[in-house]
Amino acid sequence: MISTVVLGFGNVGKHLCLALEQSDAAQLVQIYNRSESEVPESLQKVEFIHELGDLTRADLYLIALPDDAIKSFSDKLKKHNSVVAHTSGSKSLEALKKHDRAGVFYPLQTFSSERTMDLRTVPICIEAKHPEDEAMLVQLAESISEKVKVISSEERKKLHLAAVFASNFPNHLYHMASEILGEHQLDFDLLKPLIAETADKIQSLPPVDAQTGPARRGDENTIENHLHLLTNSRFREIYELLTHSIKETYGKKL
Amino acid sequence: MISTVVLGFGNVGKHLCLALEQSDAAQLVQIYNRSESEVPESLQKVEFIHELGDLTRADLYLIALPDDAIKSFSDKLKKHNSVVAHTSGSKSLEALKKHDRAGVFYPLQTFSSERTMDLRTVPICIEAKHPEDEAMLVQLAESISEKVKVISSEERKKLHLAAVFASNFPNHLYHMASEILGEHQLDFDLLKPLIAETADKIQSLPPVDAQTGPARRGDENTIENHLHLLTNSRFREIYELLTHSIKETYGKKL
Repeated sequence: MISTVVLGFGNVGKHLCLALEQSDAAQLVQIYNRSESEVPESLQKVEFIHELGDLTRADLYLIALPDDAIKSFSDKLKKHNSVVAHTSGSKSLEALKKHDRAGVFYPLQTFSSERTMDLRTVPICIEAKHPEDEAMLVQLAESISEKVKVISSEERKKLHLAAVFASNFPNHLYHMASEILGEHQLDFDLLKPLIAETADKIQSLPPVDAQTGPARRGDENTIENHLHLLTNSRFREIYELLTHSIKETYGKKL
Repeated sequence: MISTVVLGFGNVGKHLCLALEQSDAAQLVQIYNRSESEVPESLQKVEFIHELGDLTRADLYLIALPDDAIKSFSDKLKKHNSVVAHTSGSKSLEALKKHDRAGVFYPLQTFSSERTMDLRTVPICIEAKHPEDEAMLVQLAESISEKVKVISSEERKKLHLAAVFASNFPNHLYHMASEILGEHQLDFDLLKPLIAETADKIQSLPPVDAQTGPARRGDENTIENHLHLLTNSRFREIYELLTHSIKETYGKKL
């Protein structure tokens, strides 16, 4: 059993704790969070601490904190002969340089406190300075997920960038769609089946083949009408740029 | 029973035919398509024609053709005392002005020939020049979908515009994500759980509350690193504009 302390109990930390508590390979011995938080039923028996001075010994310290906080937090952690790993998509091993046995344990998913999540389908990207630590992190990851991949810091950064295009930006476009409907007292619920099908389609079809819509068809009439309907200049700019990009992709010049 | 002829056997026409064939309210009497097409098993017993001269009499002619073809096709259709409706999100009743009993039967979904689709969850937006024809179209729509809504041409145009933001643009962003991964020999499969969860989240959470990522957090470090990684100038421009838009939305100025 890999004795593990999770440091940080935000969205990522909480989901990891819930999964590790169920894991056959890990023993979740302690959870650190600066402030008090609500602890789910299944984690009630795990020791919860708020002071780094109360930290217990463990094989692995898993830092599940915001990207900007990792480096300074890592510097505050006492040196042990244990593995110290962070859960960030964008930070390199460099952020943990105080610790010789540094690693990364990055679950590629968008976590919200409101949602339960089955981590088994979530890819976990592993990296470690030393091969034996990599093996330990892989073993732990495989005990909670079916999709474990060892990748370098450079690859992880590109994956994280791609994830912004695949998740953060589409969500913002959902928001814009909901604003357009709201202006006209139309219900966002009308778009939910469309959003679900659009995301579902690319599970089996490459997105380049799944593209539909006026830009894909080169339907200038509809594009003109849409631009005319867009009163918000920021929305219009985004419409124009993405329409242009779709046309470029399919060889139809603006 | 509403005797119905479907004109056009592309993605929309085919899915409508499959649903109407199962409907208790409709009798699908004929399908018109200019060219030969593969006909699914369940539609084998429906008459299939390729010449408008062979058109039979029916209560309803449903034009499921590309937006740009609707007007000229409608003008070629003989005047009958039947309802003539199109299935377009962006075209008004005007496109059918040759016919007095004009209507719209717009299923709000992205249709691909490769996908089977349960139309019962797909919103169908109805409009008609005459109240009795609106009632007929609503009756037909309710026989294949649980989400039927009567809306005006103006509202429908706005809905169609919002659908571009909710579906066409996110799909293009999935494509860009897949390109970024492809450049680095990373598998697009890694992003599929993230894409599924992002779309699933907004089924229960308003997109404005579901937003995550560096722009939402105002994480300038990560944004700078991402811009540095983007070698394609079109991708960089889109990243900048959407990042700026997210910051504006959450009150963090660029």
